[in-house]
Amino acid sequence: MLSFVSDYIKGAHEKILERLMETNDEALPGYGNDDYCESAKEKIRKACDCKEAEIFFLAGGTQTNMLVISTLLRPYEGVVAAVTGHVSVHEAGAIEHSGHKVLEIPGHEGKIYVPELEQYLKRYWEDGSHEHMVFPGMVYVSHPTEYGTLYTRKELEALSGVCRAYKIPLYLDGARLGYGLMSKHTDVTLPMIAKYCDVFYIGGTKVGALCGEAVVFTKQNMPAHFMTMVKQKGGLLAKGRLLGVQFDTLFTDDLYCQISGQAIETAEALKALFREKGYRFFLDSPTNQQFVILENGELERLRKEVGFDIWEPYDETHTVVRFATSFATRPEEIEALRKVLENIRNH
Amino acid sequence: MLSFVSDYIKGAHEKILERLMETNDEALPGYGNDDYCESAKEKIRKACDCKEAEIFFLAGGTQTNMLVISTLLRPYEGVVAAVTGHVSVHEAGAIEHSGHKVLEIPGHEGKIYVPELEQYLKRYWEDGSHEHMVFPGMVYVSHPTEYGTLYTRKELEALSGVCRAYKIPLYLDGARLGYGLMSKHTDVTLPMIAKYCDVFYIGGTKVGALCGEAVVFTKQNMPAHFMTMVKQKGGLLAKGRLLGVQFDTLFTDDLYCQISGQAIETAEALKALFREKGYRFFLDSPTNQQFVILENGELERLRKEVGFDIWEPYDETHTVVRFATSFATRPEEIEALRKVLENIRNH
Amino acid sequence: MLSFVSDYIKGAHEKILERLMETNDEALPGYGNDDYCESAKEKIRKACDCKEAEIFFLAGGTQTNMLVISTLLRPYEGVVAAVTGHVSVHEAGAIEHSGHKVLEIPGHEGKIYVPELEQYLKRYWEDGSHEHMVFPGMVYVSHPTEYGTLYTRKELEALSGVCRAYKIPLYLDGARLGYGLMSKHTDVTLPMIAKYCDVFYIGGTKVGALCGEAVVFTKQNMPAHFMTMVKQKGGLLAKGRLLGVQFDTLFTDDLYCQISGQAIETAEALKALFREKGYRFFLDSPTNQQFVILENGELERLRKEVGFDIWEPYDETHTVVRFATSFATRPEEIEALRKVLENIRNH
Amino acid sequence: MLSFVSDYIKGAHEKILERLMETNDEALPGYGNDDYCESAKEKIRKACDCKEAEIFFLAGGTQTNMLVISTLLRPYEGVVAAVTGHVSVHEAGAIEHSGHKVLEIPGHEGKIYVPELEQYLKRYWEDGSHEHMVFPGMVYVSHPTEYGTLYTRKELEALSGVCRAYKIPLYLDGARLGYGLMSKHTDVTLPMIAKYCDVFYIGGTKVGALCGEAVVFTKQNMPAHFMTMVKQKGGLLAKGRLLGVQFDTLFTDDLYCQISGQAIETAEALKALFREKGYRFFLDSPTNQQFVILENGELERLRKEVGFDIWEPYDETHTVVRFATSFATRPEEIEALRKVLENIRNH
Repeated sequence: MLSFVSDYIKGAHEKILERLMETNDEALPGYGNDDYCESAKEKIRKACDCKEAEIFFLAGGTQTNMLVISTLLRPYEGVVAAVTGHVSVHEAGAIEHSGHKVLEIPGHEGKIYVPELEQYLKRYWEDGSHEHMVFPGMVYVSHPTEYGTLYTRKELEALSGVCRAYKIPLYLDGARLGYGLMSKHTDVTLPMIAKYCDVFYIGGTKVGALCGEAVVFTKQNMPAHFMTMVKQKGGLLAKGRLLGVQFDTLFTDDLYCQISGQAIETAEALKALFREKGYRFFLDSPTNQQFVILENGELERLRKEVGFDIWEPYDETHTVVRFATSFATRPEEIEALRKVLENIRNH
Repeated sequence: MLSFVSDYIKGAHEKILERLMETNDEALPGYGNDDYCESAKEKIRKACDCKEAEIFFLAGGTQTNMLVISTLLRPYEGVVAAVTGHVSVHEAGAIEHSGHKVLEIPGHEGKIYVPELEQYLKRYWEDGSHEHMVFPGMVYVSHPTEYGTLYTRKELEALSGVCRAYKIPLYLDGARLGYGLMSKHTDVTLPMIAKYCDVFYIGGTKVGALCGEAVVFTKQNMPAHFMTMVKQKGGLLAKGRLLGVQFDTLFTDDLYCQISGQAIETAEALKALFREKGYRFFLDSPTNQQFVILENGELERLRKEVGFDIWEPYDETHTVVRFATSFATRPEEIEALRKVLENIRNH
Repeated sequence: MLSFVSDYIKGAHEKILERLMETNDEALPGYGNDDYCESAKEKIRKACDCKEAEIFFLAGGTQTNMLVISTLLRPYEGVVAAVTGHVSVHEAGAIEHSGHKVLEIPGHEGKIYVPELEQYLKRYWEDGSHEHMVFPGMVYVSHPTEYGTLYTRKELEALSGVCRAYKIPLYLDGARLGYGLMSKHTDVTLPMIAKYCDVFYIGGTKVGALCGEAVVFTKQNMPAHFMTMVKQKGGLLAKGRLLGVQFDTLFTDDLYCQISGQAIETAEALKALFREKGYRFFLDSPTNQQFVILENGELERLRKEVGFDIWEPYDETHTVVRFATSFATRPEEIEALRKVLENIRNH
Repeated sequence: MLSFVSDYIKGAHEKILERLMETNDEALPGYGNDDYCESAKEKIRKACDCKEAEIFFLAGGTQTNMLVISTLLRPYEGVVAAVTGHVSVHEAGAIEHSGHKVLEIPGHEGKIYVPELEQYLKRYWEDGSHEHMVFPGMVYVSHPTEYGTLYTRKELEALSGVCRAYKIPLYLDGARLGYGLMSKHTDVTLPMIAKYCDVFYIGGTKVGALCGEAVVFTKQNMPAHFMTMVKQKGGLLAKGRLLGVQFDTLFTDDLYCQISGQAIETAEALKALFREKGYRFFLDSPTNQQFVILENGELERLRKEVGFDIWEPYDETHTVVRFATSFATRPEEIEALRKVLENIRNH
């Protein structure tokens, strides 16, 4: 069935599978010490225009968030995040399980507002009993956010400024980073992210890989013995090549951006289609996730023909749903969706 | 200096010190296996009208909250609490450090609203991705709350009903329980608390003891090997007698209620005094903590003469402050405060 | 260079890569809810002759050990293991990081002796202060062990008997299980393991997969909400298909055993070769890891020509080294090793 | 009944209770910010001849060990300790519960042998896979040990030298430190301990206090925000005065040493008594714990008349038992024991 349920419903980009095939019989060292990991890191450093970047490959997003946050924070610190942030809601409490509070502040279409962040930090430090409270020790943002929205360059710069003023790192969750970078409505580039953030990750799982995220520490701030801590938390793959080959492929000949751009093309087409058909959007997303408001009866009819994700109730009779495109979405699928929508409406 | 800074500025009730003296030379078993612990437990069971209650003595409130919550929750569960709850704000992240998220819902003068709780639980279970979220595994309330307010019997019953409907325990933090029980504006008794709650604690530190809280598991639900887990978290005192003797004394001849009642008398006198002098209250507290709104200039003059706690800013020119009475507050101290207030005003 | 450094130096078995290719474009549900996972589970249940087995796929061995042990143990319990066990030594303290002590007892060529285990448990429960000690809550064995050795059917049965007598689960780490099952010197089958153990895992990473281990709970004892706990610890892959397709392939047409058997053939040839050339063995390993004692000068010459693993010092002038074969080792590689050994000796 | 079961069977030294009485009605700040805490710290600094010492008061020994070890170690580090150390055996896994492995090395009458420690550290760092193992990040010794034995000045100096060579702190558990300092067979003083150790604690619970241990960080190495971490782990008392007054009293007029010396006198008398009566000792303890080997029949008769602690089986027909004196043991009690022994023997 036609499906826009998520951006991880398909396997990997075919070039990745080809490279896994081609390199399969090479005898390589384990645990990420192979040449493909090294080559991938070098290519990422170049793409980030950040020579001193330290990079580590991990298997998934929650694992990455948990590892980055828990190894950078001191025991008495928590991470400030939007109340809608992935770490706040959809990671089964992984951050708290690692011992740290997620200090929730309001989310605005998924984004933190810089003045609210600043006020939060100011009030904390002014509170007479702050030593009995969790110290804000890091700021977490997702880009694109869980609602597909993006920070502007100015916003990122301001976030970075606040973090530096309070001497805490800024961490950007880039599970869908490619789709953010290739949005038609962004002025943010990968080198800017490397400049403004202290650490971020480049999502692979949702952008063409079978699995894998590349964590980039940009300020020579990778925690000492990070590898041992990854091992300790069960995140170290014996065959690190699996991640190295994939990221080496994604960062060869600009593949990561190219396939992200394709997803943006299909997302724009999908958005235009829904707009043309008179649907309302929950918000204006510039990336691969589109949030449409459906009347509940129509939702039921539609879900028999096409896959999408139920997001949240909108009102008594409507629901917000998510349609996601990905590196693997083909233009024909948008056309197929057009027919489904027309059939449903004619029904 | 005259001080209403908190309810833990003085040592213990004199009868407690006397009993510690009298029993000092007895050779007793360690770790809470002494007769004083046993006797204190039996007296508490009677006061709670709950024969099957299982009781454990701990040293302090944060320790108690952390131990009760972390041993009753499963790893994938969190505790629902008001955003203003002590566990949410002022325990340095002890709950998260033990691996569990505090699931914050709105606080209304410190209290949870039952319909909001119910809606929260309902929505959680209806969410299609709830298995990727922290399960609500317990409800935490404080009584009196951090704002001195109290639940009514009906509210407690309703909270209990919701918890039972969702099969999760209701936990009541009674750090200042005595002051709640002896309030002139409550219809809640200790046996009711034992009936409606699955676990609660009777605060000693703030109600006459040097240290110590009595955790009461009311439904034969004390976790197996609780003592070993207390030890493991560093909460087991070798000389358990220190807690046993204190609680045995507090629950002999109704001492706990009697001294709590004295604190309520002085709190009511203090409230009447501020009202008489035309001060505004931040809220109407029926217990030993009174929250007064002071103009900032007056605040500065006042704090030179009397101790109180700065609570939070009210507006640009006013601040909320807290005056607390305790088991140790004497009527003369209220009279002394009257003079201070009159001097300040005449100034 | 010719390499016997470990059994994870190559990628995956070619059939696995083929199947990943073939299924790549299918739109599948995430998080292990796809049909390949389901099919793989069913095939494993059959191979284990254990209809009620509950199976979960994870990415790696340390992750698996940490997840199984920490979710089956109560907070006050630890896991009994040989002092040489993987969980005791080479997992960077993953078990302790999850809050549990590894209760180390002697290892005999990697194996636990049943009478020593029994005595350990007996003494623990007889100790008057045992409630101040970590409760032995599980027994961990590896099969093959870290030294390539195997338990006999009788030993497994006896281990199981002791565990049942003390009402604690027996957990078998099968990182290299295939090589154990196909050893020419074993009377242990997969159904026996399913019968005697409460939980075990079938290693994929070292036996033909890119990554992946299949945890098998044999007694309807998978912890409730195991998936959420996997997520919480960062072990849940969005594209669960990656594991499902691999295990489905490994358990189709007996591939797992077939490729394990090939590794045993090459291991036997390697063993015969070293024996023929007059080398001493550190111990008599019936599986794919062979431990040879090398004179240190020879070791230095040999490592220029062939890869192997330095294990531990033997005496002042000798060192124990490990040669491992795997599913990917070809008979020609043993022949190549022969030439290297002959050259070295003639040197 | 006459009892030598432990050194924590009685309450506190009477001067402590008197001081608690005298200071009871003073209004003092909470959480250890009172003048008694400050005064006690100053007196301890002087007694240690260590001006820059940073001191924190905690409630009990396991809490102290857990807090010191878990806040000084990095996540990937463990603590090296004798297999018989209190942290290894009798703290219900508190160290592992805090996430760290206890790296056990042999104990010799409770003591670590310096050459064995040195070899352990050397081997760890030489191991090619040490990054997959727990890093030794601290050395723990108890003094007196769990067997009452003491390190000599030379041994302490050597331990310190090894720790400095490997750049890891030396931590000394002084639960019974007073009895060690006042032993007739020691050349170790408090200033030496402050000099050689990076952190240690002065035990109060077993040496005259109701509860309380004074942690001394000697090298300006108290972890930042230690107070917040104490709070987070449930160890912060609201009425910090309880600990401050006790330690202020213990370190006024040399009370700590004086009462420890009395316990040594009664221990020496007890030792002489058992020797005179022909009993064998399990080892030669120079402090307040004496380990006697009893024939099992005699043990049964004796325990009807006098309390002592069953330590461990000696052989089929004998058992090791412990007799402990304390600050509260009176010479008459040794005389009473003499009569009991004579009666038993005549029986």
